Amino acid sequence: MDTPVYLDNNATTRTDPRVLEAMLPCFTELFGNPSSMHRFGEAVGAAIRTARGQVQALVGAAHDHEILFLSGATEANSTAIHSALRAQPERRAVVTSAVEHHAVLGVLEHLEKTDGIEVRIMPVDRHGRLDLEAYRRALRPDVALVSLMWANNETGVVNPVPELAELAKEVGATFHTDAVQAVGKLPVSVAGTGIDMLSLSAHKLHGPKGIGALYVRKGTRFRPLLRGGGQERGRRAGTENVPGIVGLGMAAELAARSVAEDADRIRTLRDRLEHGILGAVGHCFAVGGEAERVPNTSTIAFEFIEGEAILLLLDKAGIAASSGSACTSGSLEPSHVLRAMDVPFTAAHGAIRFSLSRETTEAEVDRVIAAVPPIVARLRAFSPFWDAGRATGQAGNFAPVYS
Amino acid sequence: MDTPVYLDNNATTRTDPRVLEAMLPCFTELFGNPSSMHRFGEAVGAAIRTARGQVQALVGAAHDHEILFLSGATEANSTAIHSALRAQPERRAVVTSAVEHHAVLGVLEHLEKTDGIEVRIMPVDRHGRLDLEAYRRALRPDVALVSLMWANNETGVVNPVPELAELAKEVGATFHTDAVQAVGKLPVSVAGTGIDMLSLSAHKLHGPKGIGALYVRKGTRFRPLLRGGGQERGRRAGTENVPGIVGLGMAAELAARSVAEDADRIRTLRDRLEHGILGAVGHCFAVGGEAERVPNTSTIAFEFIEGEAILLLLDKAGIAASSGSACTSGSLEPSHVLRAMDVPFTAAHGAIRFSLSRETTEAEVDRVIAAVPPIVARLRAFSPFWDAGRATGQAGNFAPVYS
Repeated sequence: MDTPVYLDNNATTRTDPRVLEAMLPCFTELFGNPSSMHRFGEAVGAAIRTARGQVQALVGAAHDHEILFLSGATEANSTAIHSALRAQPERRAVVTSAVEHHAVLGVLEHLEKTDGIEVRIMPVDRHGRLDLEAYRRALRPDVALVSLMWANNETGVVNPVPELAELAKEVGATFHTDAVQAVGKLPVSVAGTGIDMLSLSAHKLHGPKGIGALYVRKGTRFRPLLRGGGQERGRRAGTENVPGIVGLGMAAELAARSVAEDADRIRTLRDRLEHGILGAVGHCFAVGGEAERVPNTSTIAFEFIEGEAILLLLDKAGIAASSGSACTSGSLEPSHVLRAMDVPFTAAHGAIRFSLSRETTEAEVDRVIAAVPPIVARLRAFSPFWDAGRATGQAGNFAPVYS
Repeated sequence: MDTPVYLDNNATTRTDPRVLEAMLPCFTELFGNPSSMHRFGEAVGAAIRTARGQVQALVGAAHDHEILFLSGATEANSTAIHSALRAQPERRAVVTSAVEHHAVLGVLEHLEKTDGIEVRIMPVDRHGRLDLEAYRRALRPDVALVSLMWANNETGVVNPVPELAELAKEVGATFHTDAVQAVGKLPVSVAGTGIDMLSLSAHKLHGPKGIGALYVRKGTRFRPLLRGGGQERGRRAGTENVPGIVGLGMAAELAARSVAEDADRIRTLRDRLEHGILGAVGHCFAVGGEAERVPNTSTIAFEFIEGEAILLLLDKAGIAASSGSACTSGSLEPSHVLRAMDVPFTAAHGAIRFSLSRETTEAEVDRVIAAVPPIVARLRAFSPFWDAGRATGQAGNFAPVYS
């Protein structure tokens, strides 16, 4: 069989060999504890400073100490939420959206139950776009924190984050964005914005797993989540994950170097894939396709068949994709994102996310375009919903009715 | 100059090349997200299962799902404390000791201030041994959690953890041990004990930084610290740090293979080092030297001189050691551990920790034995305390007075 095609880059990316090369010395040579007062520690401290500067440059931070290294975006999101609520205990409300990642939404729903925080969940329209009017109404002086993602992991739909941050500033709320799916895919900058905190993850941009960063704007009141050591200026305890930090730094530098050109090339491939499939398969549509999206993501809803079955056959054909978030794979329910977008049940069940990367080739895209139509046809031939839908006219030209 | 001698293994260890070799495929080949439903994810899931079994074997856990992977011991300790207090909210006291790592003591002191938890801090004697009578008195039915380290990071002094856990069980408290400095140095097992939770860190046993594990005995009521994803059976959200987990697994396997023989060899070297220095330098003593210690650690207090100055000259001579915990290096105060042991101020200031590993050689130890006496003599020649101490008779045969 041919080399498998990996189109699940929103779940995780391959570590770039240049990133791995930068990390290697940190295991067996530059292995000291950066807090130590000897040559083994000092050399490591310098490597961390370089990495901090690389991440600073990628997100346009004014100061390198605004970059805080931690174990990944889940910890970054939890830290941001914890910090904002602890730093302004007199404010008891949080504004977020219905399509956030569980690492935000799940934490807030838990705090709502246990700590009596009021969580205002903003709806999105059928294209995945935030309801701006609802957002403006939710912004009141009791809001401690606004947390809105830069780009959605399932659909790629992009929020106008700088504008959303400006609005939050008007009521004195802390503004956090989970930018995990935007950094490295779009030019992302905190410079000149009202963004107070921004989460990112190395493994979504060809860096290693187990490391991420939280940008914390200078002057933002901060409370650590992990205590018990003076690392990261007292803001995140624990011996620094030096190889991870160095790897994230190199991944950030590589992304910063080519993000604009990569985005153009990836968008062309993504559009080729999407048009190729939509042109060859009936009764399917691109979820969020009419909204602004990150260039690498195409989620296509195939009506009247099951996403899990499509994935299985794709995998057999050597193609790796996803049915929504990797974190919820295994569940047979359509994801909360598709539900929030009111994607009809019969289509949401058959939603497949193709997510490309700078390593994706045109030949790979063409293999997928060729593989998908027979898979869909085969599954529909066995689908009772397909026949029933056609009988009632629902399995007709569905996409226009929806959009 | 000769290759530097690294005797700061309690701060961090060199990653074993066999560990790195096991990790390498996880960056660029086995790079999938284990939650994904395709071949890239499935292969990774198998690698994680292997690693979980390796850590299970090292600590003698009955079930592999009792091993929870997270970013390191700081997170493990925070998770254990958070979980025990949340799971038994009707119990409001915690018992710990004065010589715990900041990752336990600092977290508890913070919770005492913010959440009104009562923290009972057990004293130790001048040899670093827990006051067992005080411990028995502190164990009352209001105790949610006992957290006591297996071995101290600064002195190597070992607690009789299985016995301490039995006592905690009598009042129904959850028993947690920070075993970071014991695992890989001593045979450590939770089997047949009352230990409910145990923290360990990969980078203290020749594994990579940024990964650790928390053992959670089956049946222990558990509340996650990081939420927002179903990973680790819902107990620790966040994409798994696959290379780190695989590295920790291999480090655990290597440690399990040879911990007993390594311990014997390292103890012989440590004793050679300690006797060599104590025999050649006056007015110094081994802190905790009369207690049971892990085999790799020797902290020697040199009276009337400054530890930082000793470290600097050692570093110039190509020898890396530490003045107490790496996490508090930079502070000029004696550590809380030495203060809790009532090590006299004039000696505590000159305490140097030498911590060996299975990679330490006899030749290295002999280089240190040769290097230390002239360094101490040089610093004492310039020390006003040395002259003053001698004039008042305090710089005499100090150690016996102390012990």
